[in-house]
Amino acid sequence: MKRNVLVLAVVALIVLAGCTLARRPAQEPTPSGEGEAAPAVSGLSPDAIAIAQERGLGPDDITAALKTYLPTGVHDDYAIFSSGGHSGQVLVIGVPSMRLLKVIGVFTPEPWQGWGYGVGNDVLDEGNVDGNEVRWADTHHPALSETEGDYDGQFLFINDKANARVAVIDLRDFENKQIVKNQVAVNDHGGTFATPNTEYVIEGGQYAAPLGWEYAALDDYNDTYRGMVTFWKFDRDAGRLDEAESFAIELPPYWQDLCDAGKLASDGWVFCNSFNAERATGGVEEGNPPFEAGASQGDTDYMHIINLQKAEEVFNAGKTFDVRGFPVISLDTAVEEGILYLTPEPKSPHGVAVTPDGQFLVVSGKLDPHVTVYSFDKIMSTIEAEKWDTDDYGVPVLGLDDVKEAQVEVGLGPLHTQFDDQGYAYTSLFLDSAVARWSLGGDFADLHPEDPWQLVSKINVHYNIGHLLAAEGDTVSPDGKYLVAMNKWALDRFANVGPLLPQNFQLIDIDNTGDAMQLLYDMPIGLGEPHYAQMIEYAKLSPWEVYPEVGWDPQTQAVSENAVLPGEEKVVRNGNEVEVFMTAVRSHFTPEHVEIQEGDHVTWHITNIERSYDATHGFAIPAYNINVSIEPGEAATVEFDANQPGVFSYYCTEFCSALHLEMAGYLLVEPNGSSAMLDQE
Amino acid sequence: MKRNVLVLAVVALIVLAGCTLARRPAQEPTPSGEGEAAPAVSGLSPDAIAIAQERGLGPDDITAALKTYLPTGVHDDYAIFSSGGHSGQVLVIGVPSMRLLKVIGVFTPEPWQGWGYGVGNDVLDEGNVDGNEVRWADTHHPALSETEGDYDGQFLFINDKANARVAVIDLRDFENKQIVKNQVAVNDHGGTFATPNTEYVIEGGQYAAPLGWEYAALDDYNDTYRGMVTFWKFDRDAGRLDEAESFAIELPPYWQDLCDAGKLASDGWVFCNSFNAERATGGVEEGNPPFEAGASQGDTDYMHIINLQKAEEVFNAGKTFDVRGFPVISLDTAVEEGILYLTPEPKSPHGVAVTPDGQFLVVSGKLDPHVTVYSFDKIMSTIEAEKWDTDDYGVPVLGLDDVKEAQVEVGLGPLHTQFDDQGYAYTSLFLDSAVARWSLGGDFADLHPEDPWQLVSKINVHYNIGHLLAAEGDTVSPDGKYLVAMNKWALDRFANVGPLLPQNFQLIDIDNTGDAMQLLYDMPIGLGEPHYAQMIEYAKLSPWEVYPEVGWDPQTQAVSENAVLPGEEKVVRNGNEVEVFMTAVRSHFTPEHVEIQEGDHVTWHITNIERSYDATHGFAIPAYNINVSIEPGEAATVEFDANQPGVFSYYCTEFCSALHLEMAGYLLVEPNGSSAMLDQE
Repeated sequence: MKRNVLVLAVVALIVLAGCTLARRPAQEPTPSGEGEAAPAVSGLSPDAIAIAQERGLGPDDITAALKTYLPTGVHDDYAIFSSGGHSGQVLVIGVPSMRLLKVIGVFTPEPWQGWGYGVGNDVLDEGNVDGNEVRWADTHHPALSETEGDYDGQFLFINDKANARVAVIDLRDFENKQIVKNQVAVNDHGGTFATPNTEYVIEGGQYAAPLGWEYAALDDYNDTYRGMVTFWKFDRDAGRLDEAESFAIELPPYWQDLCDAGKLASDGWVFCNSFNAERATGGVEEGNPPFEAGASQGDTDYMHIINLQKAEEVFNAGKTFDVRGFPVISLDTAVEEGILYLTPEPKSPHGVAVTPDGQFLVVSGKLDPHVTVYSFDKIMSTIEAEKWDTDDYGVPVLGLDDVKEAQVEVGLGPLHTQFDDQGYAYTSLFLDSAVARWSLGGDFADLHPEDPWQLVSKINVHYNIGHLLAAEGDTVSPDGKYLVAMNKWALDRFANVGPLLPQNFQLIDIDNTGDAMQLLYDMPIGLGEPHYAQMIEYAKLSPWEVYPEVGWDPQTQAVSENAVLPGEEKVVRNGNEVEVFMTAVRSHFTPEHVEIQEGDHVTWHITNIERSYDATHGFAIPAYNINVSIEPGEAATVEFDANQPGVFSYYCTEFCSALHLEMAGYLLVEPNGSSAMLDQE
Repeated sequence: MKRNVLVLAVVALIVLAGCTLARRPAQEPTPSGEGEAAPAVSGLSPDAIAIAQERGLGPDDITAALKTYLPTGVHDDYAIFSSGGHSGQVLVIGVPSMRLLKVIGVFTPEPWQGWGYGVGNDVLDEGNVDGNEVRWADTHHPALSETEGDYDGQFLFINDKANARVAVIDLRDFENKQIVKNQVAVNDHGGTFATPNTEYVIEGGQYAAPLGWEYAALDDYNDTYRGMVTFWKFDRDAGRLDEAESFAIELPPYWQDLCDAGKLASDGWVFCNSFNAERATGGVEEGNPPFEAGASQGDTDYMHIINLQKAEEVFNAGKTFDVRGFPVISLDTAVEEGILYLTPEPKSPHGVAVTPDGQFLVVSGKLDPHVTVYSFDKIMSTIEAEKWDTDDYGVPVLGLDDVKEAQVEVGLGPLHTQFDDQGYAYTSLFLDSAVARWSLGGDFADLHPEDPWQLVSKINVHYNIGHLLAAEGDTVSPDGKYLVAMNKWALDRFANVGPLLPQNFQLIDIDNTGDAMQLLYDMPIGLGEPHYAQMIEYAKLSPWEVYPEVGWDPQTQAVSENAVLPGEEKVVRNGNEVEVFMTAVRSHFTPEHVEIQEGDHVTWHITNIERSYDATHGFAIPAYNINVSIEPGEAATVEFDANQPGVFSYYCTEFCSALHLEMAGYLLVEPNGSSAMLDQE
């Protein structure tokens, strides 16, 4: 109906414009203030109008199309770094076009990048759990590195909820450099979050369990199951988490959820919420309430308030105990040293978000229609006054009324909050399938005309939004402009692709030139269920186009000792150890023949000697599960046991030139005996 | 410059429109032929115009935006099924929005779908090569199943060039059902292609090697290295390739490239080109010409013309020899029985494409600026006349002049051709970075005004196009409308994401309402380098929304004997074999506690008893590398050895409800002894 109205309107416009323009020849240039000739107006609009009519586009659709479309070669203004959810990877998405620019192989092998198929195998092995190869992850919260509370575009961290691991991606080449396995907890959730200068990367726990992956019966839950928060020290020069300078804090078994680092006013503090202060242990099959009911019985859970600065002092003073070789500040020590405090937070919360000035903490309980805003000043003065009760573990519990600044009724199922540059907060509403915009108080009240702490407006999303993200919306200086609803259900939004549906990222215009938020674009995510994401101004990134020097090893970010230069190609045998030194350039490998014996152990070094942007070569060997991507300048090394005799054509897997198909060679593995062919590994 | 011109033009339009409209109140409805009120024109256009101005969008950009934008909830008209290149997966892309709707896990483990992380492991094992686990692929050519030469939307086939394997995807649930490993060749290239009723799926070879993965020295190349083409019989009822009814043909070692099945006039025949008729064996390190030069020395290579109908008769008559248990028609038999013919094709070709009527075959040599068009009738009459020479292997070689219909000069680096519904062909030009539109002859000449076999126009693409695809452009009834350039290099098209760049799919409007092709959209592909793709009208697909019945096993497409219904949940022990029967429903698993012993072998059956669209649950177990996706109605079974004692929270990995985080349970693995904790696998 609405679209018909538009069509009539635009048709009217054509007629009007046409009549007016008929007074002069259609192709005659119109006068121009800058002295340039303009084409006839009628040459543009009728086309566009006819298309809009044919495709049933309404006025809002047309503005949305024009706000998001990028002509060929025009670059996006922002990059979203999104968790790939249980794909185990990181997604890089351009804004406003909402195009997937890259999937970065992180916890899961990814053959396009060769990740786990010849390169990166050592990094993936760092993530093994007690010797078990774990080759996926439930990636949750990416965290861009920060300087003075603002994204600096240098590194990205991301955690694996399923196995309590953290990875470090270098944004010079968009490649994963490190995986650390948490020694204290089996799983995590509340990570990763960076402190304002990325001194630490925070990893909070989730489902309580005995520390150190130990066994204990569920009957001993209160005594032996524990939560945790881990602070990974980041060495920016090395581009690695420094395990030797990292530590954890033991927490009560309250199923910690999300964390956020204080900033500016609250710098040096960390806040984590939780959602099973009831300490329910489930067992629906035994007649107990299931977790969903048991963990929701109480009206409140606990926000954890952590003095990180003091914790660091206590860790440096050695007041820790050891869990699988990792230092942990005990719950008792945390209480004694004034490191840990609690305060109630309404019903089954998900998410705690620190306002850009660091003055307020926003928590929303999924079963409470309000966001609850805490004052950091009030928390500090209540702690100073030592005004508290204690929980069963002796942890001080600050009274909600003593620390609460405001509560704002926003709608059903509030989950997560981010901020813009106009003094507004945005909260996702899972049950309402909406985003609420509400006004902040404190110093933010000067930025907007509304009363503080008021719901301002809502926009519907499709459907069941989890997290949301705004442009730099969790930093000290949010940009406003764009917000993305990370919707968990898609239902009817996209053409049917079978029983497993994509998720739906919806781009929303929150630029306050008008009053209303506008839905701009639906982006299907059909390769994982992203949990959280961050959006950074693209200008802050400065990735390499090619590796700095020929022979570069991305793992060390330096020239490799195994770099191969033209003329240095060779095959060296030492017993049954064979070492191949190869170069790749359009459009051949050198050497093109490699002849070895069955049973040889092969170490194969390949350097892409190209210096041209995008002149990537691939290198695949059939049957041996090997494929690597060798970007310009890169030196890669792959290893394998030649357990299969035969003739194997290695070849370039990146279409590099018109004679790319000819970029191949023969690996000849001579059998040790005639029966060798039938051997199975 | 151009954009400034537009801005001036649209500003002029506002002024003109504004002046005209000022004669009546802005909000008054305009007269409407259908009796509906239209909003004031000035309320719509200035917004859109201001946005276009601010974003620098020119007239073509605006029409492109309006041709590709889909408002929320509006579905795409076409689906592209694209190879994921060396990701090993299949990409599903909507047209015209060019949004990635889904990545289907095929040859590479994919944890979002649980593919290889608990389900699908058996199918992936089918793809092992001589016992080696090969867990990636270089997917090349997807082939939609056909009925009477047209896509029927039921199945999708795709090959792995690196390891000569073929997979079968069922388009009811978009899941992979089968992987077959070719027993004759180590690698392939010219697959998959379906015959007009999907009787056979064609898999052609690439780099010649001794048949049956045997070893032979390169010195014996001419005598012992061979090419091949394999015909996999498809059992549509079973939804599987039937290995027992499949066979191969031995071919000369000419490095076969692409194949295509005849249709209509040429039904029953198959055509494969090749690019190393020189039989170069490389060895640049020994002073030989590298393959890129050696394989390009001759002016022509050979198109292979194969009588599939006769080959089937010969196979059924048992005139085959055995390679690793697989029946192969020998080169000698193929010649004797009139199955195989050759004809020259210009210089290093890539691709042979049969016209929609089956009358012509289009081949383009990468180093020749023409496409060469062969007449099927001429081929038949030349064969009938027995007018031929023979090659070194005794294969009849038809004279090019005897079978050629036309040559069309299209530009530099022609690679691959598809067709529209207006009598035009489209050829990708790798070196020109362009697409050429040219006019077909024969019966097609009636459809267009141009002379037959003439270059009509070109459009630039960005950059280095490999394959292209048009809507149903390789069927008996192409749709025209859209074409996609599958560009191999992106260079400056997208914001920098590090040294490994995405590829660039460019959507082109080929609808012949106007004369010129229009570039509509750049889609970055940052998760593999797709090789080929097909585009099908979405209305031909009818995927399931949920599985037909509760307890459905996607591998058998029937109710599983391990389906678990509510009330039937249990844990059964038999020695150290533990079997868990579990249900999943929003928002709990039943049971929530599973207590086992270290060393147990666990078989865990989970049924998602939901019937709601999109009510998918995940099921992850930390440390054991297990995550499965259980769609509504699905029954999944995972197995593992409980080699690690401890407390592991299994949980739902799909955000299914507001209490999704509470959808968890405890797996308690009691240690056998106190030292067990330190054991490494």
